[in-house]
Amino acid sequence: MNDGANRCVVVLTPNPAVDVTYRVDRQRLGVTQRVTAVARRPGGKGINVVRVLRTLGVPALSLAPLGGTAGAWIDEALGALGIQSASVPIAAETRTTVTVVDGETHPTMLGEPGPAIDAHEWEAVGRALAVRLASATALVVSGSLPPGTEPGRVGDWVRLAREAGVPSVIDVSGPPLLAAAEAGADVVKPNRDELLEATGAADERSGAAGLLTLGARCVVVTRGSAGLAAYTPDRTVEVPPIPAVDGNPTGAGDAATAGLVAAMVAGAPLLDALQRSAAVGAAAVMQPVAGEVDPADVERFVANARRD
Amino acid sequence: MNDGANRCVVVLTPNPAVDVTYRVDRQRLGVTQRVTAVARRPGGKGINVVRVLRTLGVPALSLAPLGGTAGAWIDEALGALGIQSASVPIAAETRTTVTVVDGETHPTMLGEPGPAIDAHEWEAVGRALAVRLASATALVVSGSLPPGTEPGRVGDWVRLAREAGVPSVIDVSGPPLLAAAEAGADVVKPNRDELLEATGAADERSGAAGLLTLGARCVVVTRGSAGLAAYTPDRTVEVPPIPAVDGNPTGAGDAATAGLVAAMVAGAPLLDALQRSAAVGAAAVMQPVAGEVDPADVERFVANARRD
Repeated sequence: MNDGANRCVVVLTPNPAVDVTYRVDRQRLGVTQRVTAVARRPGGKGINVVRVLRTLGVPALSLAPLGGTAGAWIDEALGALGIQSASVPIAAETRTTVTVVDGETHPTMLGEPGPAIDAHEWEAVGRALAVRLASATALVVSGSLPPGTEPGRVGDWVRLAREAGVPSVIDVSGPPLLAAAEAGADVVKPNRDELLEATGAADERSGAAGLLTLGARCVVVTRGSAGLAAYTPDRTVEVPPIPAVDGNPTGAGDAATAGLVAAMVAGAPLLDALQRSAAVGAAAVMQPVAGEVDPADVERFVANARRD
Repeated sequence: MNDGANRCVVVLTPNPAVDVTYRVDRQRLGVTQRVTAVARRPGGKGINVVRVLRTLGVPALSLAPLGGTAGAWIDEALGALGIQSASVPIAAETRTTVTVVDGETHPTMLGEPGPAIDAHEWEAVGRALAVRLASATALVVSGSLPPGTEPGRVGDWVRLAREAGVPSVIDVSGPPLLAAAEAGADVVKPNRDELLEATGAADERSGAAGLLTLGARCVVVTRGSAGLAAYTPDRTVEVPPIPAVDGNPTGAGDAATAGLVAAMVAGAPLLDALQRSAAVGAAAVMQPVAGEVDPADVERFVANARRD
C-alpha cells in the first residue's frame, strides 16, 4: 500500500447511469402524461456508495466508464457534488434510468441496459484502476455489468487490488459474484436473493459456505429489513435489524456497503463494521432518494445498537 | 428580402426536445421494466418540420434555444443528420420526452415541461432570428412555448419576419396562436381542436374568421384524416383527405407544415400548396417515426390528387 497524502476508497461503478425521476399526477398507460417535476442524479450502485462515503467524511474516488452526453453529465454532476471522479471515456452512450412516481402507485422504473464496452475500453478501465489502487485504502466494485461484459472482469479487478495490497469489497450479482469470490475478494456482499441465485444453494448458510470455498475471505449477506450476517471461514456474526425504520429502501444496500467500508478503513473489528453497515443502511431508508444519509441518523442508530 | 446565395427556410422551435423511445416487452405500472431498445431523436415540432424540409430538398435552418447536455445532444444530432442549425445557448436543461412502446398497448408518452428561459435569453433568440431572416425564404415557428413564456413572443417573431419581408407560417396553439394572428402572420396553421380551443368558436368556419379578423392573412386548418382547409379574407379552399393511408399520425401535422412551406417558397398557388401539404402529411403517416417521409410517397399522393 502506498502511504501518499491523498489515500482514498476507490469505487468502481461498471455500469453507471443518469437516474431520472419523473413525477406525474397519476401514472397511466397508453396516454400522454405531463411530467410535473424532474430530478436527475448521477446513479448506479457504486456512485450511490461514493456519495454516501462522502457524506460520512470518508475520502473516496469514483471511477467509471462514461460515454456520450449522459456520461458527460454524470462527470459534471459528480464534480458539482464535490466528489472526486476519474472517468474512462467510452464510445457508447452511458445508460439512463427513468423512474415514474405519483406518490400513490408503486414507482415504475424503466432501465436502459447499458452501453456496449469493448475489450480495449475495459483494458483502459483496468489501467486506470491499477493507477488509482496505488494510493487506495480500499476498492469497492458495485452494481451490474453492462450487457456483454465477461463476468471475469470482476475477478481481474479483485486481483489488481490484491496485488496492490488493497482490501476489496464487491457488491455484484450472478456469475460476476462467483468470479469475485474465486479471485479471493476480501468481502463479497450479496443480498440473500442474489446469494441463493448465484450459488444455487438452498439456504443462506450453504450459499455463503459456497462462496468461502471458492475463495472469498468474508461473505456479508444483507437481509433487507431482517438485519445482516457475515460469514468467514472461522465464524458467523449476525447483526439484528435497526428497529422501527420506515421509508424508501432504494439504495439502502449501497449505503450499507459504504458503512461497512468506512468502518473497515478505520480499522474497526468485524462486529463493529457490521453494526455501522446496518446503521448507515437504515439511515438511507429514512431518505427519499438513493445515495443520501443524514450522519445524525447513523450515529443515533450506532449508539442504540451498542446499548442493546 | 435578401437575395444572398444561402437563402433558406428558417424554422424556429421554441421548445425543442430530445425524443427518446423505449421499447419494453409489455408495458406495466409499478414495476421495474427492462428497456430492450432505445432510440433518441432530436424533436419538437419545428425540428420535425426542418427534418422533412431537408428530405424534400428544401434548404432550411433550424433555430432553437438549447441548454445543458440535452441541448448539446440535439445540436450534435442535427449536425449528424446534415441539418444546418443555429442554437441560442440557455442556462437551463432542454427538455426530454420519453415514449414507451411495446407494439401492443397504445404508447405512453412522458413529457417534461421544458426549461425556464429568461427575458435576456429570449432577446438573444430574437436577435439570432433577425440575423437569419435577412437571408430567409420563409419563417416557420412550430410547437409549444416553454412554461412561463409570454405568448406575445410569437407576435414579436412574426413582426420581425414582416419587417424582413419574409412570409411566416406559424403552427402554435392557445394564446400564442392569437398573438401570431394579431401580428399579421401570413399563415397560421392550427388543427381543428386547437382552432376551436384558442378562439372559443363553435365551429371551424367561425374560428377561422376570428383569426382572420385578428389579422392573420390565411388560416390553414388540418382536420386529421379528414383533409384540410384554407381560409383567406376572399375565399375558402378545401382539400380532401388522401385515401387509404394507415399508420402513425405522430408528426403528420409537422410534415404537412413542411409540405405547405416547400410549395409556398416554390411559388405555388394556394390550392397546389394545400395539395402538397396534404400529400406530405399523408406520407408521414406511412413512416414509423415523426420527422420522416419518403419523397416517392409524396409524389405518388400529389399525382393521385391531381388525377382526381
